[in-house]
Amino acid sequence: MQTESPAIEKEFMEYVKKISHYNEAVGLIAWDLRTGAPRKGAAQRSEVLGSLSSEIFAMSTSKDMKNYLTELRQESNWEQLDEVTKKTAEECEKQLKKFENIPPEDYKDYVILTSNAEVAWETAKDTADFDSFKPYLEKIVAYNRKYTEWKGYEGNKYNALLDDYEPGLTVDVIDEVFGKLKEALVPLVKEITNAKDQPETDFLFKPFPAKKQEALSREILENMSYDFEAGRLDTTVHPFAIGLNPGDVRVTTKYDENDFRTAVFGTIHEGGHALYEQNVDKKYTGTPLCTGTSMGIHESQSLFWENFVGRHYAFWERYYDLLKKYAEGQFDNVGLEDFYRGINVAGPSLIRIEADEMTYSLHIIVRYELEKALINEELEVADLPEAWNNKMEELLGVRPEHDGEGVLQDVHWPSGAFGYFPSYALGYVYAAQLKKAMLKDLPDFDNLLKKGDLAPVKDWLTAHVHQFGKSKKPLDILKDATGEEINPDHLIDYLSTKYRQVYGLSL
Amino acid sequence: MQTESPAIEKEFMEYVKKISHYNEAVGLIAWDLRTGAPRKGAAQRSEVLGSLSSEIFAMSTSKDMKNYLTELRQESNWEQLDEVTKKTAEECEKQLKKFENIPPEDYKDYVILTSNAEVAWETAKDTADFDSFKPYLEKIVAYNRKYTEWKGYEGNKYNALLDDYEPGLTVDVIDEVFGKLKEALVPLVKEITNAKDQPETDFLFKPFPAKKQEALSREILENMSYDFEAGRLDTTVHPFAIGLNPGDVRVTTKYDENDFRTAVFGTIHEGGHALYEQNVDKKYTGTPLCTGTSMGIHESQSLFWENFVGRHYAFWERYYDLLKKYAEGQFDNVGLEDFYRGINVAGPSLIRIEADEMTYSLHIIVRYELEKALINEELEVADLPEAWNNKMEELLGVRPEHDGEGVLQDVHWPSGAFGYFPSYALGYVYAAQLKKAMLKDLPDFDNLLKKGDLAPVKDWLTAHVHQFGKSKKPLDILKDATGEEINPDHLIDYLSTKYRQVYGLSL
Repeated sequence: MQTESPAIEKEFMEYVKKISHYNEAVGLIAWDLRTGAPRKGAAQRSEVLGSLSSEIFAMSTSKDMKNYLTELRQESNWEQLDEVTKKTAEECEKQLKKFENIPPEDYKDYVILTSNAEVAWETAKDTADFDSFKPYLEKIVAYNRKYTEWKGYEGNKYNALLDDYEPGLTVDVIDEVFGKLKEALVPLVKEITNAKDQPETDFLFKPFPAKKQEALSREILENMSYDFEAGRLDTTVHPFAIGLNPGDVRVTTKYDENDFRTAVFGTIHEGGHALYEQNVDKKYTGTPLCTGTSMGIHESQSLFWENFVGRHYAFWERYYDLLKKYAEGQFDNVGLEDFYRGINVAGPSLIRIEADEMTYSLHIIVRYELEKALINEELEVADLPEAWNNKMEELLGVRPEHDGEGVLQDVHWPSGAFGYFPSYALGYVYAAQLKKAMLKDLPDFDNLLKKGDLAPVKDWLTAHVHQFGKSKKPLDILKDATGEEINPDHLIDYLSTKYRQVYGLSL
Repeated sequence: MQTESPAIEKEFMEYVKKISHYNEAVGLIAWDLRTGAPRKGAAQRSEVLGSLSSEIFAMSTSKDMKNYLTELRQESNWEQLDEVTKKTAEECEKQLKKFENIPPEDYKDYVILTSNAEVAWETAKDTADFDSFKPYLEKIVAYNRKYTEWKGYEGNKYNALLDDYEPGLTVDVIDEVFGKLKEALVPLVKEITNAKDQPETDFLFKPFPAKKQEALSREILENMSYDFEAGRLDTTVHPFAIGLNPGDVRVTTKYDENDFRTAVFGTIHEGGHALYEQNVDKKYTGTPLCTGTSMGIHESQSLFWENFVGRHYAFWERYYDLLKKYAEGQFDNVGLEDFYRGINVAGPSLIRIEADEMTYSLHIIVRYELEKALINEELEVADLPEAWNNKMEELLGVRPEHDGEGVLQDVHWPSGAFGYFPSYALGYVYAAQLKKAMLKDLPDFDNLLKKGDLAPVKDWLTAHVHQFGKSKKPLDILKDATGEEINPDHLIDYLSTKYRQVYGLSL
């Protein structure tokens, strides 16, 4: 007979549920601010976010929380806790460690600051006016520097931030992984750039009405097993997906009427994130475990779908006809082979979110090296635009003409997400490892795509990644799913094989 | 020299601001649930609402709140308070009185209950299945009966509920006002129904694409001075307007492609509510005063715009051409006079939100008499559908064929808003009084409408109603703006004059 859970455990889980409710409200407000909230209400809404985030902060670091955690850790209690409660307690301990030394007032001010900074950034970006945004970014960087000290770290200061987004990874490991990527990709990019046999791309840039793109995007999302009864699709400036609870996971996208790729690949990408959040085991609802385990693993899901599915030849064997159905004659004279080469055109460019999969990691490495330097006080915000431009030239061989297409292009710094960027490239590395492992279970992967039968792919990812939510650590997920530690070789192999082929170079 | 505000005052206002932030979050969640939140996330979202509402409840009745109010009331403090703080304290005292005797668990359960009840009601309404909704409504009624006891009342139990929506009014006054309305309107409706010269209406029910209706609605809203940078327009099942803060006041509507009147008059109506919320003096932001003073005064604004502007002949002298521009030939052979008579067709009907202005008050009186009986335990939920149908027959001469077009048609009871309904008819009575008063300042009212110059109308309402927010009591607003107490005679005069004319009867 099962002993009844002790009162302390129930109380703790109720307390945790309340925090999850506040987080859900914060998530909805964030979604709303980015999808259509009226401009004039935004400053006041930032204060609402500040109040709610402060409350989350206060609850996560309260005496009550500390008492719960101490009591649960008592041996007589700990042993009889169920798995969900145990993992929840561990996650709360992690949050407590993250927050407990931050002065509450600083934290609240910071939440309001970043909310206002996002609004200021929108204008600064549109007008390429770094100076108007500089005061915000200086305050944000200063806070993050202090934060690393409040939180503590081993080795590099930046490790304190990494731990928030990709626990288990350190500057040492990332420097090695990114070093290998640079070593392989910088010459590959040059080789591709100089290849004689460049793909045709004219046909990509013809008018494709937004309404038609939307219909296509919805059809692909449905094929991916995205559940529209547990989500919705909206437009925004900087697309994202957000899981409020497993029954409400929203995707956003944007439509460029002269380049359908923005919406199609963007939606597949965000759909990959959304599938993760929709398929976390329901038993974690109302706990901090009910979300993706890390930004890197999250990105492995979006990039898996975007690149290993969406940019695969076999995928378009099925979906090219569908695309043609929605397009207005744009591809009538374009064969599948040319289409495939066209959508996989690669080469140096300025904008990360429009970058191809070959150069994408290099865009990330630019940001990683800059933010690592900012946090370690080896670089100041005033010098950032110049440093950005130099780094772009060094890794990608291109230099922005203004900050709107340079240092101001991403929402991450305005929103205070220092330590986030590496996850994109790490996720990509993980995705290549997952693909390798998936092929063992689904050797007919290409054929599934060709048939448009995407459910087995989604089911494999749910079984190996999604279902665990945050109850399993990122590197454990990777290890259990692939049998390996982090290893960039699979990504390098994939990229050099694919792009040598697309560009007609010897393998 | 001004003395500096004492610390207690500042602390109190900070505390109140936090409550306003939680209210704003609750408002956004409610808007989202009604405009497109995915179905599968709704139950979890209800729990979020429950948590936030509980916190608002807890803060509004906390020891801290009681201490603040006690300290502020000390003579040495009270005298030096500024107007905003004084009125805020008075409003908090009112909230405290409202909440302090409700057991917190009952309150939280009730918030979750009504949130779930709204979801259940949607289905029940669509399938005309009262039984599936009955258990929810029984619990809601039971709570409201208890609530009147917790809160206390003088005279009729129902006065406790009235005080939440229309402070200052009682069952005695309403019975008298509604009695006069019934006495005048029931025979007028019969007379109109039997009039020989009925308006033509065929042309109303032709296809009018939703997109075009939306463009028309937006143009009218803009002409009304609705600020789209401080709001947005969305679609929903049961249209509403909601003020989250003065910079974010949202309007919702719905488009019936076979009857443009739903959207056009619905949008003008909700736009009237929205103008109120957008034009509350900014100095009240972050306090409980930053909203309409009562549901009745709120409704006076929406009905003023819908009926005294939107259904006025002079309005269509200007806007009929605009309507024609958006319509697809629907009115090509319809003269303005016939159009005016057509949109003002009146007579008994089943659905309140589609009712004409002549019968509208009777729909309200049906609901008022039923909910007054429910609260006073003179009627049980099981007997409600039958009682509804009988009352409809008695006052309007029509009987619903199923509960979907009868007792299940409104969201108010599912959402627990007992005591709300009378405000609609009271607002209508107020609106007629305001129109009478406005004519003294704007004798060329008809001509303004004819020119499409609606700004002076909006400005008059801002000056006499909007700006004060909740800092002024409803009957004081009415008295100061019109020089009168509540008086249904103006509405009765307006309706009998207008409808006798529309129906070609002797005046």
